[in-house]
Amino acid sequence: MPQHITYTNQVGAALDRVLASTCCLRLFVLTDENTHQLVLPHIDSKALHQATEIIIHAGDEHKTLDALAQVWHALSDDGATRQSVLVNIGGGMVCDLGGFAAATFKRGIRFINIPTTLLSAVDAAVGGKTGINFNGLKNEVGAFAEADEVIISTCFFKSLPPKELRSGYAEVIKHAMLDGHETFGQIIEQAPQQLTLQQLEASVQVKQRIVAQDPHEQGLRRTLNLGHTVGHALESWAFQRSGLAGTSFQGSGIRASMPHGYAVAWGLVAEAVLSHMLLQFPSDDLHRLGTYVRDHYGTPGITCDDYPTLLELMRHDKKSRQGEINCTLLRHIGDPVIDNPITDDDIKTALDILRDYVD
Amino acid sequence: MPQHITYTNQVGAALDRVLASTCCLRLFVLTDENTHQLVLPHIDSKALHQATEIIIHAGDEHKTLDALAQVWHALSDDGATRQSVLVNIGGGMVCDLGGFAAATFKRGIRFINIPTTLLSAVDAAVGGKTGINFNGLKNEVGAFAEADEVIISTCFFKSLPPKELRSGYAEVIKHAMLDGHETFGQIIEQAPQQLTLQQLEASVQVKQRIVAQDPHEQGLRRTLNLGHTVGHALESWAFQRSGLAGTSFQGSGIRASMPHGYAVAWGLVAEAVLSHMLLQFPSDDLHRLGTYVRDHYGTPGITCDDYPTLLELMRHDKKSRQGEINCTLLRHIGDPVIDNPITDDDIKTALDILRDYVD
Repeated sequence: MPQHITYTNQVGAALDRVLASTCCLRLFVLTDENTHQLVLPHIDSKALHQATEIIIHAGDEHKTLDALAQVWHALSDDGATRQSVLVNIGGGMVCDLGGFAAATFKRGIRFINIPTTLLSAVDAAVGGKTGINFNGLKNEVGAFAEADEVIISTCFFKSLPPKELRSGYAEVIKHAMLDGHETFGQIIEQAPQQLTLQQLEASVQVKQRIVAQDPHEQGLRRTLNLGHTVGHALESWAFQRSGLAGTSFQGSGIRASMPHGYAVAWGLVAEAVLSHMLLQFPSDDLHRLGTYVRDHYGTPGITCDDYPTLLELMRHDKKSRQGEINCTLLRHIGDPVIDNPITDDDIKTALDILRDYVD
Repeated sequence: MPQHITYTNQVGAALDRVLASTCCLRLFVLTDENTHQLVLPHIDSKALHQATEIIIHAGDEHKTLDALAQVWHALSDDGATRQSVLVNIGGGMVCDLGGFAAATFKRGIRFINIPTTLLSAVDAAVGGKTGINFNGLKNEVGAFAEADEVIISTCFFKSLPPKELRSGYAEVIKHAMLDGHETFGQIIEQAPQQLTLQQLEASVQVKQRIVAQDPHEQGLRRTLNLGHTVGHALESWAFQRSGLAGTSFQGSGIRASMPHGYAVAWGLVAEAVLSHMLLQFPSDDLHRLGTYVRDHYGTPGITCDDYPTLLELMRHDKKSRQGEINCTLLRHIGDPVIDNPITDDDIKTALDILRDYVD
């Protein structure tokens, strides 16, 4: 069955309906310690009561080969077959790791994602990128494998900390910038907690439309990297600065010290500046974005002393080729251009202007 | 690029030609200790001299998660990018494990298979099944991923032990049985060492034609399981009897005590008997096959005391559903039928007649 998304606030009933129409001989459910305790009891599903539970440690620092092997072991020991189904209930970490485990167990069993954070609903749960961190690098090992079904609900978001909700909202802003003026106007005029299920659906559909045309990221899908060249560098910079780098690069875990979406929000501003400089992206849209990000995300706390480190990180981005810094930029809202080579001086100017907005 | 196969006895030149037409920023070559020492020095390729070498332990007992992690580490540490290419040089173990490592490193880099045994040339190197043993089970974890290029040569086979050559030849016989009378007649009238490069090409093409129509084994591809329901049970039985089971099920390795192809050869006879009993497969073709297998493969050494164990193993085959024994059978040479349910009594009769032929 092709990837299908159900938007509902009756998650348990939706899951039972999906499973009733699936030839599933054995059901497994993957959660982390948090979603096991806080989310699972509130999903009213008959099928889940009979499922075999697999519980992993929470947090991106546990998105490791050890946790992956734990899931493979649990599936194997409990007799999962090619007709079994794995339900991943959690944030991006659970969807990424569980999706990869399912994609590779017996060369691929079916899986269902139930994202419990806004970030995973608009990002990890949809589009088929699965994987784990390895050798100190994010998503170094993984596979393209789409969930057979995704069940998206806003009911889990009510209990999310505001910071977590804002983090996911940055991807909603990105999708709006790729989509068009009307969506961008709506999204940028409201607070993250005002997001409706209908707006969430529209946001996910922006990603779906792009992924359907280029599932393996040969070209068009790279438009989804908007904000992420600068964003990933900020994330890695914060990670190194937190002093966790030493231990983590020894193992395979990565501990986040800057929420992903915050880094993306600042990255969106920096890359909108670059878009203005190089592709005449309108200054009034840049200004609206910069103001919104300042008001809701504050400042990344970088100074010009950090620029050499940030440039070095951008050069080592997975998306870069032979050390050249590359960005997705916008001509206008709704009109992205992939693969723009960027000079060091342009990046420095963009970071200066980002700081003018948010510091 | 779609999977392409070059048949040549100039392997080095063929590899250089392929790589010259590939946008490959960095080349890696995977061998095991044996192929590193015995094969690599004889491949006259300029590109290989500049490649980063990765060497793993030889043998199916090392087709493990540890060896997989070793390959991922080597790729990651030496800066492999999405534009890198991995060349797997070896038997089925190297092609299976290397293919899986490539399929999952950064969600998939390109790889080239150079099979060095007859078995891997006609089986593992082609068709996109990659994987490792895990939790004491063969290929429990893996992916469907086709090599971007396969370079097949008979020049490596000259130094193979006769037993290894015969093991591969069983898959050649299987392909001939799926193909038609003319091929079957040719293959069954000559000794394994008489196989020509042209015949090898024809044999691989039988598999390719089937895989192209059903890459993910939803139906037609199961015809390639001919001989393997009984064959896998014999292999597992020999493995358990060798006394290695205890240690191996603790780790993730599997050590083979009966060559795969021998088990398949005996499996082909047993399943040809079942084909005769259930689908009127002609007795003269059964007789020619039985005689050939007796002359070249000898006996598996089973007695009727082993039947309960063998039946139990067949019920737990990856291909079986809900404990029902299932076989691919033949109406005639060249006319396979998948998914035939088989009773215990029929299996026992088939094993009796197999023993009449080969004991």
